[in-house]
Amino acid sequence: MDDVVAAIADRLVALLRGADDRRPSVCELAGPSTIEAAFAAAGAPLELDPGAPALGDAALLAAVDRVIEHSVRTLHPRFFNQNFAGADPIAIVGDWLGAALNTTMATYEAAPVFTLLERALLDRLAALAGLRTHEGILVPGGSYANLHALHLARVRVDPECLDRGAAGGPRLRAFVSAHAHYSFAKSAALLGLGRRALTTIPCDERGRIRIDHLDAAIAASRDAGERPFFVGATAGSTVLGAFDPIDALAECCAREGLWLHVDGTFGASALLSPRQRGRLRGVERADSLAWNLHKMIGVTQQCAALLVQGTGLMRQTFSTRAEYLFQPDKPHADLDTGDATFQCARRVDALKAWLTWKARGEAYLAARVDHAVALAEGCAARIAGDPRFALAAPPSWVNVCFWWLPPELRPLDRGAPGAVARLHALAPAIKARMLADGGAMIGYQPIDGGPNAFRLLFINPAVDEGDVDAALELVDRLGTAAIVDGL
Amino acid sequence: MDDVVAAIADRLVALLRGADDRRPSVCELAGPSTIEAAFAAAGAPLELDPGAPALGDAALLAAVDRVIEHSVRTLHPRFFNQNFAGADPIAIVGDWLGAALNTTMATYEAAPVFTLLERALLDRLAALAGLRTHEGILVPGGSYANLHALHLARVRVDPECLDRGAAGGPRLRAFVSAHAHYSFAKSAALLGLGRRALTTIPCDERGRIRIDHLDAAIAASRDAGERPFFVGATAGSTVLGAFDPIDALAECCAREGLWLHVDGTFGASALLSPRQRGRLRGVERADSLAWNLHKMIGVTQQCAALLVQGTGLMRQTFSTRAEYLFQPDKPHADLDTGDATFQCARRVDALKAWLTWKARGEAYLAARVDHAVALAEGCAARIAGDPRFALAAPPSWVNVCFWWLPPELRPLDRGAPGAVARLHALAPAIKARMLADGGAMIGYQPIDGGPNAFRLLFINPAVDEGDVDAALELVDRLGTAAIVDGL
Repeated sequence: MDDVVAAIADRLVALLRGADDRRPSVCELAGPSTIEAAFAAAGAPLELDPGAPALGDAALLAAVDRVIEHSVRTLHPRFFNQNFAGADPIAIVGDWLGAALNTTMATYEAAPVFTLLERALLDRLAALAGLRTHEGILVPGGSYANLHALHLARVRVDPECLDRGAAGGPRLRAFVSAHAHYSFAKSAALLGLGRRALTTIPCDERGRIRIDHLDAAIAASRDAGERPFFVGATAGSTVLGAFDPIDALAECCAREGLWLHVDGTFGASALLSPRQRGRLRGVERADSLAWNLHKMIGVTQQCAALLVQGTGLMRQTFSTRAEYLFQPDKPHADLDTGDATFQCARRVDALKAWLTWKARGEAYLAARVDHAVALAEGCAARIAGDPRFALAAPPSWVNVCFWWLPPELRPLDRGAPGAVARLHALAPAIKARMLADGGAMIGYQPIDGGPNAFRLLFINPAVDEGDVDAALELVDRLGTAAIVDGL
Repeated sequence: MDDVVAAIADRLVALLRGADDRRPSVCELAGPSTIEAAFAAAGAPLELDPGAPALGDAALLAAVDRVIEHSVRTLHPRFFNQNFAGADPIAIVGDWLGAALNTTMATYEAAPVFTLLERALLDRLAALAGLRTHEGILVPGGSYANLHALHLARVRVDPECLDRGAAGGPRLRAFVSAHAHYSFAKSAALLGLGRRALTTIPCDERGRIRIDHLDAAIAASRDAGERPFFVGATAGSTVLGAFDPIDALAECCAREGLWLHVDGTFGASALLSPRQRGRLRGVERADSLAWNLHKMIGVTQQCAALLVQGTGLMRQTFSTRAEYLFQPDKPHADLDTGDATFQCARRVDALKAWLTWKARGEAYLAARVDHAVALAEGCAARIAGDPRFALAAPPSWVNVCFWWLPPELRPLDRGAPGAVARLHALAPAIKARMLADGGAMIGYQPIDGGPNAFRLLFINPAVDEGDVDAALELVDRLGTAAIVDGL
């Protein structure tokens, strides 16, 4: 197998060398039957047939080529679809190094280097956030980070719940904004708090939580005999890129005795940039912070940090002292991290982030963030000045939400009869054409119950103003084509 | 950065080529200060200093070399420490491919190929288990698979808990064996069931759940007004490799109306081998099955499948229909998997498993399992015939638990004064020497409250009888040295 491994590695290195090439399509999305046929033609049908012999090297390479050919090029400068993009080649090769060494983070003896790299990484993140003392860990994604935080908050206010369960404890209530990530609702359900124990607070027109509404909701909860315990602030909301006012939330939480969690999975990377870090003013007062390095700064999926202010609660909450793994009489057992999180085996996610940090230097990471924000601001200005488009929300962070306007809706009057329904139908029609065209990839969604709007996300450092123009012109061309087609 | 990426890739390919070389040590475990000094000397201190410039290529390569040098060689044929080992180079390069394409499994549009590969993989796993209809998903590890299963079982018996929370619902009780993985206790705490809602049932001398005790515990729970709802069977327990009698548990669960989950994270790979699959007789009647492909069959961390019999419950349980991600008016939206699990972004873990299956053929995977079982059985027989050692439990699966006996305890009489304390102290002393020596890596733990015993785990297909001998002779040599040192 050695030669085919080397051949595949060569292909991957070539793939990274060509990552910024704008000539290939981002993805020409094929349906299942097309992809099935392509793999079958390559001698590697998708189905796992128990009687099928081992593939020869040629068929294996052909299968790898089909995988590459039919996958989305998230490294491509015209991939705007997700809040990750343009992974750093150093992070990618760091991921490869971790896979080649294939171990688990659970114990120091199985991961001596990675345990220390994780600590160094978390120490730097905590310093950037201004946390005094901290414990922390990398978890497999932002949803799990938010889940951990909500659970830790519950344990602080009701430690007995670990043994007794949620029933019989205080009637708890948590608060997030209406623009918070859906993982809070999932977490409330999973934790046995129940989705009804989560209040979503209205936002202002920029998607920021309304403190007055939060204060009223907390008071109402107390009046109802509940125990408010948790506020989840959002730093960089998924759709609008909104930053809740953390300072004001910290005041509120201090006054009311609530846990303040900051979901900075998307936006905490602003802390890297002296010009952007003010967006998280007050984060040093948070009880916990989620920060995904696989979003803004181009570490590969997944690299999600959870930081908790103070020490001891994570271990108190998660420890089971499994004797087969965490032998206290083993060298360096005090450095074992696995007993302070939910997971048992963990990938060595810290490695790729640490390597990227070292290879690039922190100033580069800050510049990456600044570049993305500048592109978004330029794009928003460009849209505001172009009669073919309209901003769907004031711009914030690296998100630009907009509508393409069919000629009869220029300039946009949302109150015009049928305008909303027309906009709502156009985005999916344009997106379907874009997926077939492959010239760019841009997501869309309704905003606050309004019509579907496109959302450009600026993350990849290779993106320039020419890419912004190309993306907008593509939307215009496909929108026009949709109308010609009778939509 | 392209050249240094290529240089690192070359190092990794060379690392895989040399994986079966027995000359390097498995790991000479260094403490934090030694590792810190090594990285500092290479020009890449562990600490992330905000003012540090970007590393040059030479220092970056030196850092990568230090990572490799001080990490545990889990590919080494003398690594017996964990229930994973000897990752398949095809799986490793499949992991690299996934990292290079860096996308998320949440939606078909972001992961068209990987969505189909995951389905093909899960279909094959479900067929091997004999499940009729199924839904399933890959999750980041066995603990999360068990967590999902426990939650799904709760939702089936108490669907309203998703909104209402655990309080106000039936008083639920779950059952696992005393040898079940600690993730069940962690899950009970996290889910708000509470650890007291989990009853651990005594096992027989081979670590298998005692059905008579389970029946009695279920009856007692009903008598106490509770609602028993879940039995977690273990197929391949962590320490002894025990397989609970799934057929009998399925009878019990059918009679009592309980959810039967099979934690086959370690042992479900027995289903690949016609000679081993009888260990899971009855698994086709399970409601859910956890199966880690990153353990027995050498896929890299992590590749953990959760299979659920029937269709609909996973989506009912986890769906939030987040509008920014799961637009129903998008092409192929019916293939989106992300709304049927807890996670949002997911790595493309199916790819590496699918590629391994294709490259090797299923017969090879079966042979890998058979080889491991045969080695374990041979090792157990070897230990039984050697007066320097004693088996700590009857052998099962690929686990061999044993003591090294100091001369005065041969043959072993556990009732002899001080014998237990002596054995208990010897394993950590030998292990500490082994970590410094690097000739092999073997775990230890107490078993059923008895003294610390070593646990050899046979997983890597490169291991042969010479490695077994070498491991045992190493233990003997280090045990003798410990005694010479006055232990």
